[in-house]
Amino acid sequence: LNRIKASGLKLRFCTNETQATREKFVKKLQGMGFDISVAEVTAPAPAACRILKERSLRPHLLVHNDLVPEFAEIDKANPNCVVIGDAAENFTYANLNEAFRVLIGLEKPVLISLGRGRYYKETDGLKLDVGAYMKALEYACDVQAEVVGKPAKMFFESALAEMGVPPQQAIMIGDDIVNDVGGAQQCGMRALQVRTGKYRPCDENHPHVKPDAYVNNLAEAVDIILQQL
Amino acid sequence: LNRIKASGLKLRFCTNETQATREKFVKKLQGMGFDISVAEVTAPAPAACRILKERSLRPHLLVHNDLVPEFAEIDKANPNCVVIGDAAENFTYANLNEAFRVLIGLEKPVLISLGRGRYYKETDGLKLDVGAYMKALEYACDVQAEVVGKPAKMFFESALAEMGVPPQQAIMIGDDIVNDVGGAQQCGMRALQVRTGKYRPCDENHPHVKPDAYVNNLAEAVDIILQQL
Repeated sequence: LNRIKASGLKLRFCTNETQATREKFVKKLQGMGFDISVAEVTAPAPAACRILKERSLRPHLLVHNDLVPEFAEIDKANPNCVVIGDAAENFTYANLNEAFRVLIGLEKPVLISLGRGRYYKETDGLKLDVGAYMKALEYACDVQAEVVGKPAKMFFESALAEMGVPPQQAIMIGDDIVNDVGGAQQCGMRALQVRTGKYRPCDENHPHVKPDAYVNNLAEAVDIILQQL
Repeated sequence: LNRIKASGLKLRFCTNETQATREKFVKKLQGMGFDISVAEVTAPAPAACRILKERSLRPHLLVHNDLVPEFAEIDKANPNCVVIGDAAENFTYANLNEAFRVLIGLEKPVLISLGRGRYYKETDGLKLDVGAYMKALEYACDVQAEVVGKPAKMFFESALAEMGVPPQQAIMIGDDIVNDVGGAQQCGMRALQVRTGKYRPCDENHPHVKPDAYVNNLAEAVDIILQQL
């Protein structure tokens, strides 16, 4: 990371994290020793806020308590859409019914989902992710959610716009074959898959997505990129 | 109802009720003055029990507390499938994650759903029905649920088998264009739609389902049936 920053290349961190504000997320990474600031992070919640503002949407929020501050400046009175994130313990029967009632009551129901993950692993076991609850609301209201976050094209376009860089001049480095590599490529970027984290050997036989190259770790990705400058 | 019974015609009540045992359901209708017994009721839970026994399936139950007695005789140790009903208050974050973990942990995940309703209305407002939660688990585990209850063909076939009547000699009377009329017709039965209860005038323009006839109420349906004996 330090070598990329020293090279003068523009850098952006793209995360699907929706259980915490960018502030909290950045503090965690800083605590691990990473040189990272809030302004360098592209995350679903601020991307959703831009959409809400652009389209004069006032959300009913079904999100994690720790994410609520990201929506501080958004008008939430008399909602005309529903925004769903990985609400975790907030995915109660009452809260799901409430979000459903708001959505079904709208003349033109708009459901914005901060990701479409199926599930994830925590120390106490597997948990249903936002995508599962998104599907429940989609089915109940017969609507299609607009997904914000990787691999949505719009999400990568936001990150590029924030840097002022065209996709042809950008490269994505990620461990997720679909969300990182596939999403970036659909947007016209090149993409490297690191063989760490979420990577699994079977990713190399993925039916639809093929990275521009594989690297064993982030350091190797940086080597390759800096060599080509 | 009394006129049908007096005529000697065989009769069966087909319900998608999964928030209570047949005993409770029947008591409620008896209280309203209906001549009805448990043996005359075809409901999703007993239909699911037959499937579980036939296929040696041991369910993890995510159902309403009041429905649990219907599964009293079913072996539930070391589950190899998940049965989901309208669990209402039991649709907690913890219970949904638990059902998900059982399902995703199976070598061949089997999900049996007691209905596929999207939502229903109670005195305190609209509620998400079992179909929405079924969709969440389907998506998370990449499986297709087996639906027991109307409009599943198998459900009507069970009712017919219990009466010992071929579909050509049976007629369904119901207020739900898809679940009652469509389901029965797919099974080879004729079906009348009553213009009461769930009926809405727009049902008469349904793109796929057309009842064999409309009646204004149950009494009119009985008139027509008895006239043709």
